Order: sequence, then structure tokens, then C-alpha cells
Amino acid sequence: MEKIRYRIGILYGVSLGPGDPELITRRAWTLLQREDIHWTYPVRGKGHKSFALSIARAAGLEPPADADALIFPMTHDKARLAEAWSVAAQRVLEVLRAGIDVLFLVEGDASTYSSFGYLARTVLEMEPGIAVETVAGVTSYSAAAARVQTPLADVDDRMAVLPAGYGIETIDHLLDEFDTLVLLKVKPLLDDIIDLLERRSLLEQAVFVEKTGMPEERIVRDLRSLRGAGVNYLSLLLVKNPDRKRDRIVRG
Amino acid sequence: MEKIRYRIGILYGVSLGPGDPELITRRAWTLLQREDIHWTYPVRGKGHKSFALSIARAAGLEPPADADALIFPMTHDKARLAEAWSVAAQRVLEVLRAGIDVLFLVEGDASTYSSFGYLARTVLEMEPGIAVETVAGVTSYSAAAARVQTPLADVDDRMAVLPAGYGIETIDHLLDEFDTLVLLKVKPLLDDIIDLLERRSLLEQAVFVEKTGMPEERIVRDLRSLRGAGVNYLSLLLVKNPDRKRDRIVRG
Repeated sequence: MEKIRYRIGILYGVSLGPGDPELITRRAWTLLQREDIHWTYPVRGKGHKSFALSIARAAGLEPPADADALIFPMTHDKARLAEAWSVAAQRVLEVLRAGIDVLFLVEGDASTYSSFGYLARTVLEMEPGIAVETVAGVTSYSAAAARVQTPLADVDDRMAVLPAGYGIETIDHLLDEFDTLVLLKVKPLLDDIIDLLERRSLLEQAVFVEKTGMPEERIVRDLRSLRGAGVNYLSLLLVKNPDRKRDRIVRG
Repeated sequence: MEKIRYRIGILYGVSLGPGDPELITRRAWTLLQREDIHWTYPVRGKGHKSFALSIARAAGLEPPADADALIFPMTHDKARLAEAWSVAAQRVLEVLRAGIDVLFLVEGDASTYSSFGYLARTVLEMEPGIAVETVAGVTSYSAAAARVQTPLADVDDRMAVLPAGYGIETIDHLLDEFDTLVLLKVKPLLDDIIDLLERRSLLEQAVFVEKTGMPEERIVRDLRSLRGAGVNYLSLLLVKNPDRKRDRIVRG
């Protein structure tokens, strides 16, 4: 008796870049054009909008009618997260096992603060043989740096990317070690960060970018004007420290 | 008498991504198709090959016959660098002043260890009114992370990007502070880094990626096998530290 081999679909993590549909890569674009592929995208909860999906729409693409919203809740409750990942991965596996490729839309870059890593890992735990392709994308901080024409890193520079929530002490001491800090989720600490940068005479070296590349993009160079202001969660601060003490560096 | 206004060209910094021509963005692609634009690209010296140009070629694009190689020498001699930037900027300005847009090809992302920042700054110093558009791109480390399916950053993670040449002590202490280190230009220190990772039991958490996305791509997970081996300058190490002590984080 011959063994029947079913084709199992491939899981694609498709980075769409930070919001400007022009920053979608050619590889992502090719996958988005395919008609034989099942679309999935992350949402925070039932009925919520998907930012990733809105980027595809801004590029003029309408999701297929059977596209699946997968729920990735905004929680730090590990049991709830694991349950959500498991439900999402089950759904993806169902489609893959039917021999259909699955595309998971990702805002920004699929390796950078993305839910795709959790989805892919959970799918692979359930079915280790699945083929996964991650399509890299442009990060929001690369796009922000391009918009404000501030290099993230020149020769020999060091750069750090972190949520601002680690606090002022952490940011203060990382400024001694890095030429560029990319601070994410600045909202709860913004006033304190502004005070710190003022104290260190680095206010002129910082720029605030919200919703980079989108129609509502906001670039603020006078950080003082943001004191007490509300900012979006899709916002970041680029801070340069031109006074960083340089150690000796080995070149090869 | 009416004032005659000449149109001055726009300078475009066009990121081409890390090498895989599929990772070129739609915006870059549109600019590369334009026939009314002057191409420039960086080389290390006269007669040298341009990696940025080779990415365009890998995408099936042939540079226009009048494309200009601009020399950005590999030196840390500030006077020689300033002279080279000045020569490159003069050439770009000549074309812009003739009313022609100029495209400067960039490997990776134009804000990340790129010569475009120097070129744009020098052009703007010479002629402050010039319009510059920087097209962001995919970095080599995002592409490498996608290839090896290792997230650079999950929720609340911190990531640092730096040349390995700052030394073992620096890398050692940054491992305490970051969940992910992206170490560039590892060549001269590779053996010492391997020793450090072995000492810290982090060898299994590291992966070496050379020429990501290119036909000659090399991914090495058994770092011990690289001891004493020659590696390319287009190589990097992704190192995760799952044992990092987490501070309290403020969320908003």
C-alpha cells in the first residue's frame, strides 16, 4: 500500500512595516497578492481593530472574506496569554493541515515586539514539522529616524531599544553607555524623561515621533511642549548622547 | 521683472535592505524605476565594488550608464573623511542644481551605520535648502533574526546593537542589562566572545549569521565550530540572555 502524503501549508509571518504602506517589502507584497493563501491578523480582543490589517488596507488591499482575526490580549497574565496563543495556533494549524498556506500580518518587523514569535512557537510546539517563513520588515524606529533625519547609529556607535517603563534611573545610566536610545511606550514616564533630559542638557538631542509614516504622524522637537500632554501608545523618543565617553575599540 | 525660480533636485537616500532583493520596500522600488533620476552609490575606493549596487543588480536592475560611484573611504582619519564627504556632496549638489533628483543607494537601513547620513549632512551644510527624503529599510539584524526565527525583542525586552570591538568586558556587562545583544563586526574578537558565552552558559542562546539573505548566507548555531575560523565582515552575532534579572517596569 502506498503511503499518502498530504501537503501541509506554510506559515508566513508577513511584516508590513511601521504604517506607511510604501514601506512594505516586495516579498510581503508578493505574498499579499496571492489568492491561494489564508489571511490571519492580530487583534487585542473581539471586535477590536487590527493595526496590521489597517496597513494592508492603506496599501489598497482588502482582506479576503474568510480572513481570521486572532486574539492576542493585552495582558501579563501568563495563563491567559498561553490560552490565547493556543487558541490562535489551533486555528492556524487547522488551515495548515488542510494544505493551505497561512499569512499572519504583522505591524513593523516580525522579530521586534511582535506577536508572531509567540504564534510561530506555539504552532511549532503543537506540530514540530511546520515550515515557517518570517519576512523581515522596517521597524518603527528606523522609519522615525528616517523621517526626522537623525541617524540611529554612525560608525562605532552603540544603540539601545527599550520600553521607557524601566524608569528614569535606567534611562539615565544607559545614556552614559549608548549614543542612541530608542525609548518605546513613553506615555507614563514622559514628564520625568523630559526632566531628565533637561537636567542632562540633552533636550535638543531628543525627538518625539508618534504614528510615524501615517497621516496622523506627529513629530515634536520641542519636548518641553509635551509636558502634561497625552501621547499615543504608537509613539517613541529618539535620544542621542553626543557626549558619551568612548572606550577604546578593537577593529579588524 | 519676474523672478525666475529654478527647480533644485531632491536627494533620496534609498535603503535597499540587507541583501535579499525581495526585502526592498515598495517606496525604494518606485524610485529605482524612475528614469529621470540620477543614481549614486557608495564605494570604499576607486574601482571597488559597491555592495549597495550589487543589491540593485540582484533585483534585476542595471544602473544607468551615468551612475556615479561616490567614495567613502574606510578610515578613521577625520580630515580624509571630511574631504571625501565634501567631494561626494559637491558631485551630488552639481546634479541637484541642474534640477535633477539624486538617488543614493544604501545597503540595509539608511539610518543604521550608513554613509547616507554623512552625505546628507554635508550636502545640507553646503546648501541648506535642499529637500532630502530618507527611505527607511530592513536592517541586517532584523533579517538575520527572521532567518533564524529568534525574536530580537518580546514584550518588555531590551535590545542593544553595537560593534563587538568594544570588548569582552563591555559585552559581559551588557549581557546583564539586555535580553538581546546584536554584535556587529565580530571578526577580531570572535574567539574571546565564544569563551565569554561558554563561561556564562549562553552558547546555546547565540547564533552567528553571515551575509543574511544572500546566496552565500551562512548560519552557525554551534559557535564552538567557529573558533579560529575566518568570518566575513558582513556577519553578526545574535545573543539572547534569558536569565537577565528584570527590574520593575511601569506600564501606562
